[in-house]
Amino acid sequence: MDGRRPVPIGTLAVIGVGLIGGSLALALRAAGAVGCVLGVGRSRANLEEAQRLGIIDRIAELPEAARADVVFVATPVAQMPAVFAALRPHVGKTTVITDGGSTKCDVIAAARSALGDVFPCFVPAHPIAGTEKTGAAAAFATLYRDRKVVLCPEHETDRDAVARVEAMWRAAGATLHRLPAAQHDDVFAAVSHLPHLLAFALVDMLAESSEAERYFHFAASGFRDFTRIAAGSPEMWRDITLANRQALRERMADYRARLDRLDQWLADGGPEAVEAIERVYTRAAQARRAWQRAIEHGEPMPSFETQLTAE
Amino acid sequence: MDGRRPVPIGTLAVIGVGLIGGSLALALRAAGAVGCVLGVGRSRANLEEAQRLGIIDRIAELPEAARADVVFVATPVAQMPAVFAALRPHVGKTTVITDGGSTKCDVIAAARSALGDVFPCFVPAHPIAGTEKTGAAAAFATLYRDRKVVLCPEHETDRDAVARVEAMWRAAGATLHRLPAAQHDDVFAAVSHLPHLLAFALVDMLAESSEAERYFHFAASGFRDFTRIAAGSPEMWRDITLANRQALRERMADYRARLDRLDQWLADGGPEAVEAIERVYTRAAQARRAWQRAIEHGEPMPSFETQLTAE
Repeated sequence: MDGRRPVPIGTLAVIGVGLIGGSLALALRAAGAVGCVLGVGRSRANLEEAQRLGIIDRIAELPEAARADVVFVATPVAQMPAVFAALRPHVGKTTVITDGGSTKCDVIAAARSALGDVFPCFVPAHPIAGTEKTGAAAAFATLYRDRKVVLCPEHETDRDAVARVEAMWRAAGATLHRLPAAQHDDVFAAVSHLPHLLAFALVDMLAESSEAERYFHFAASGFRDFTRIAAGSPEMWRDITLANRQALRERMADYRARLDRLDQWLADGGPEAVEAIERVYTRAAQARRAWQRAIEHGEPMPSFETQLTAE
Repeated sequence: MDGRRPVPIGTLAVIGVGLIGGSLALALRAAGAVGCVLGVGRSRANLEEAQRLGIIDRIAELPEAARADVVFVATPVAQMPAVFAALRPHVGKTTVITDGGSTKCDVIAAARSALGDVFPCFVPAHPIAGTEKTGAAAAFATLYRDRKVVLCPEHETDRDAVARVEAMWRAAGATLHRLPAAQHDDVFAAVSHLPHLLAFALVDMLAESSEAERYFHFAASGFRDFTRIAAGSPEMWRDITLANRQALRERMADYRARLDRLDQWLADGGPEAVEAIERVYTRAAQARRAWQRAIEHGEPMPSFETQLTAE
């Protein structure tokens, strides 16, 4: 359990003290892994609440934050280019910068361009955690416990910086994973960004309908779970789906072709079409059940072929 | 509370003693609202288990079941035409037949054709309840408590028969609603059948991908909720989506046009396109949050305009 040993971070600067940034500060405090926490943000009221709640020790500006041991950029991804540019002239010699953005290719491109020769101290990261709530008041110390954090270091990224970010996330209770940035963006386009877009589109369609009242009146538990993610922040998801639009549009093209095929089979209704529909539903149900068993038993995910055969 | 007074049903026949049929029997027994329960089905083992569990008093055949006071047809919808045809020659003079199918136009057409001159004793119904589990062992007495049951009587349907079915469902704890069959099928295409098809299609796409293992490895709680309904019975959902394909394909056409538009806006990425994306996400998030508040506070759903304004 060497990796879980608290890591002494003298000063942590959190840029954007919301659910993601505030929860990391609380987790590191609870683990005794951080000395002083600085908070930077656009909303003075939110920062004062963060201080009152003991999430940050004091409010700071970007030039001071840039000299912290670790700078955690936890703003929406669309704001990161400006944050990196403002940090650049002040970055300390041993400072490590990392982020919590849901997309990685765009964040890395922005960091490379804005950070210039200090780009190697930037460790691109994506903690796979969150709730529908926002703001410092939503933060809690156990948000990252047993959750995945994906690091996407580039070939220039400093190895020591990566090791320090890994140790920090371990201290917060997370498990570490690595993916090349392009693979990261493809994976999350498929398992997160596309589902969000699909849920938003469905609820919007129902809300715009002249039958909206009746639809929502009879909607039940299946609808509730399917559309839970459509209650997420519209601004955040606008930014994420735009930032990752290349990978997202590739998954969407595949998905739309599949809907077209299902529609043709429904229109046809003959024995072969019925069989084709059942094949799709069966493959999906088997995969979904296998995945549920894997996550419920806390086991590492077995190879996908193995699961389907075991069904 | 006159409507909740237990109704004496001398003999109830349940055709298909699974979650839906078995739970009605248990609820009526618990309410003291039924004398004897007959069970009919294809699987002898399931019927014997139902008897052992006290769900039914004894196993019967369709001719005897057709003379019960109330016959509840709780088989998958694709089997109902054959069940109605087998009941027809034996239906008792005061027998009421009702069903638990998720689609109504097709069930009504089958009943009208198979029941002939006794069609007026058939009360088309859809209890909005269920779990992912199947079979008699999954049945429980409180499944219908505070759940909606939608009745879709036709102009020929006997009024006394409707009143008796309403009283039966009230005794089981449900609340009664009425919709014309075509409206019922449109509503459930939108809030249930389309979401199921969308979830099946997404999980199937990921499972078929060469990246399947990685996708499922990184899928988190948003994916879990969005795809829960893709673990449902492939056979049952094949039948439902085919039975309701006309209404479903209309909703799908609208939905696919919306995905096309979102894709074009993502490809564009200009200020107007970004605004259009945000507008869709915002309208969806507002509607989803308003709906959540309505169901959480147990209040009747206010008019849709009111909710959006109140946001």
